[in-house]
Amino acid sequence: MTNELISKEKVSLKMKECGVKDLDSATIRDVVRIANELQDENNIKFVRMEMGVPGLAPSQIGINAEIKAAQNNAAQFYPMLEGEKELATQTSLLIKNFMDIDLSSKNIAPTVGSMQGAYAAFMAVTACHKEKNAVLFIDPGFPVQKTQMDVIGKPYYTFDIYDYRGEKLRDKLKSFLDKGDISSIVYSNPNNPTWVCLTDEELKIIGELATEYDIIVIEDLAYFGMDFRKDYSQPGKAPFIPSVAKYTNNYILLISSSKVFNYAGQRLGLLCVSDAIANKYYEDLDIRFNAKTLMYALVYKLIYTLSSGTAHTPQYAVAAIFRAVNEGKMNLLKDAHEYGKRAFLAKKIFTDGGFRIVYAKDGDQNVGDGFYFTIGYPGFTGSDLAQELISYGITSITLKGCGSKKEGLRACVSQIGQEEMELLKLRIDNFKADHKI
Amino acid sequence: MTNELISKEKVSLKMKECGVKDLDSATIRDVVRIANELQDENNIKFVRMEMGVPGLAPSQIGINAEIKAAQNNAAQFYPMLEGEKELATQTSLLIKNFMDIDLSSKNIAPTVGSMQGAYAAFMAVTACHKEKNAVLFIDPGFPVQKTQMDVIGKPYYTFDIYDYRGEKLRDKLKSFLDKGDISSIVYSNPNNPTWVCLTDEELKIIGELATEYDIIVIEDLAYFGMDFRKDYSQPGKAPFIPSVAKYTNNYILLISSSKVFNYAGQRLGLLCVSDAIANKYYEDLDIRFNAKTLMYALVYKLIYTLSSGTAHTPQYAVAAIFRAVNEGKMNLLKDAHEYGKRAFLAKKIFTDGGFRIVYAKDGDQNVGDGFYFTIGYPGFTGSDLAQELISYGITSITLKGCGSKKEGLRACVSQIGQEEMELLKLRIDNFKADHKI
Repeated sequence: MTNELISKEKVSLKMKECGVKDLDSATIRDVVRIANELQDENNIKFVRMEMGVPGLAPSQIGINAEIKAAQNNAAQFYPMLEGEKELATQTSLLIKNFMDIDLSSKNIAPTVGSMQGAYAAFMAVTACHKEKNAVLFIDPGFPVQKTQMDVIGKPYYTFDIYDYRGEKLRDKLKSFLDKGDISSIVYSNPNNPTWVCLTDEELKIIGELATEYDIIVIEDLAYFGMDFRKDYSQPGKAPFIPSVAKYTNNYILLISSSKVFNYAGQRLGLLCVSDAIANKYYEDLDIRFNAKTLMYALVYKLIYTLSSGTAHTPQYAVAAIFRAVNEGKMNLLKDAHEYGKRAFLAKKIFTDGGFRIVYAKDGDQNVGDGFYFTIGYPGFTGSDLAQELISYGITSITLKGCGSKKEGLRACVSQIGQEEMELLKLRIDNFKADHKI
Repeated sequence: MTNELISKEKVSLKMKECGVKDLDSATIRDVVRIANELQDENNIKFVRMEMGVPGLAPSQIGINAEIKAAQNNAAQFYPMLEGEKELATQTSLLIKNFMDIDLSSKNIAPTVGSMQGAYAAFMAVTACHKEKNAVLFIDPGFPVQKTQMDVIGKPYYTFDIYDYRGEKLRDKLKSFLDKGDISSIVYSNPNNPTWVCLTDEELKIIGELATEYDIIVIEDLAYFGMDFRKDYSQPGKAPFIPSVAKYTNNYILLISSSKVFNYAGQRLGLLCVSDAIANKYYEDLDIRFNAKTLMYALVYKLIYTLSSGTAHTPQYAVAAIFRAVNEGKMNLLKDAHEYGKRAFLAKKIFTDGGFRIVYAKDGDQNVGDGFYFTIGYPGFTGSDLAQELISYGITSITLKGCGSKKEGLRACVSQIGQEEMELLKLRIDNFKADHKI
């Protein structure tokens, strides 16, 4: 007799029905489908920790600005490829206020989510030098960026950062860069799926190598400032969000409105290219795209042909939000803090239940509490653990599916409110009772 | 002494400043810039006929639906890749009501404008059979679609339809298709830049050859139903918008909200794949994109990695507009008719001034009055004529820049209201006085 809510047999059968052999090879959307169908068929509400869906209401400042733009017939006019001036201006200020980085508004363009920003950036950076057509991902990472490389048709390398933190990172990176075919290093900070944040020491290593090897760092800031161990929310005041931009001029920043401002539905990202490389001439890029500068290729060749720019009204929304944050009228992280609180509570429930945090440290500090955290359980592979937890009404994705070498899971707190923590605790207690260590 | 508003020297100088050698090689955006700067510097208002910007207010039904969606926090939630169900349902009905074509809502996905729809379609169709990696454009056409092929990195062919109307089209198409490397035929109907509409005879030839050669026709319906020679605006009643879909199962339709509903600013197109090929297995496509069907590749590989779908609120807007049109509560072409009226007046002014319509006929009929028309003047190349007209305060683009072999210009009526016709007449009269034929 176990405390399972759904029998292992039912879970296996449903996976088979959905064409999923094991959960390491399942996509997030596979897990969503399995959970949705099991929920309906068994009349059980899952504790949903598999998908990073924004779990908070979007900023009212954004919604109001968007409605005003709609009333003013913004729908009629093609958006400029360079985007609304005010949006670029406020983004440049945001980067100055919260990262202490100077980046001209001229080198910022809105994209249809950071997904388009990354796609365009991958297309461009892999064409700057024709012998350097590959990308190096510091894993674990967002799996879809690798699918983007597959769609583009260019090669990539990855490695798991777990064993290469601190100064060890340098030799590991050099071992890849010495191959000579790498155009760029890509990572997210804070990291999806592990919530690891690269330390200043690590960012410095990446920056120095980018300069030395003449490659471009693509820093994905999908969770802008959401490392709550420090307060990055005061405009113009230290501490500032750590960035490779402090250590090299060869960088592109991807800023998203989806997570920190809960604006995922309107698909608006910002592609921010360092002043030093935005206007640089790359001979091979010119041959490939007939473009005299990197920024010209990104905006007038890539963003133009990919979608002719980004929908008009969301640009006004995000510009208004950034303005409010820059002027101190709205706290950058006011809403996002909720995720930190949830993670603190959920991590305690899991660790009390015998789970451990897999990616636990940044240097000598514990990783912060934020959107994601990682868990493992003695004697379980990630794939088996994810499947077992479905029987106890909890969904997650495996770390291996995100390029990790470690056995374990990514748990996301975006969809579980603090009021659901008691239910999570009950289910973890049940799991613990059935799995004595 | 001439009637020029701006001297030829000033126009030449400005072109040089903008890096434009001649107007055949200029992009539309180059012409926009030249005109903007000359306007400011000479305090003259141009009659702007160079760019196809929607010139009418967007549908209030759309705006209202969009505002309601924004108030309901649509910004928070990631859009589904397949789009809002209601949008696909209404698009399927639209295709049935106005084209008399059955196409399942399951095979319709929203895109970030038809620009993204075309990009994704070009990526997919050129990968279905690896030996068929090229696209054939029936020119003249929208130049950016060729830039898309350059960005994708696949070859394309073009030919000017001028000398190959009617049955002559068959052998011309076969001469290309016999090469064996063509994956698809692409055209817009009505045509940008000429407003030529393919006749049923021509559509039948294209359809038959598509079936015979196992290739896919991409029919760009950017100007959906805007051939005003017939009334296509009654839902469920003949006449229906002519389409290749009547003559082959191998087709993809691109429907845009930009022109017929003045919704360009919100970037929403519909990618509609015929039921017969949407679920077809193409071995090479599977190898390239790990996708078992064409529709899966388009939605879950291409639209996913290009932008993770399309902004949320515009989907509600366009769904509401389509619904109103399907239910007969709003006339499909009510607003768009204005362009036909303008074209009628403007064409008369030009022909009275000694100009001729370059692309004048569809079969035995005169081309319709719509968004664009084409003009030539005795003794002038298109490039020289476009430059000369700038001196008289009128902007346009050349046909050669759109892949035509003919000397002449595309004139667009979207930006000139009926109240500006008197000014246009005055300027054309001045031009005529200075250029006795």
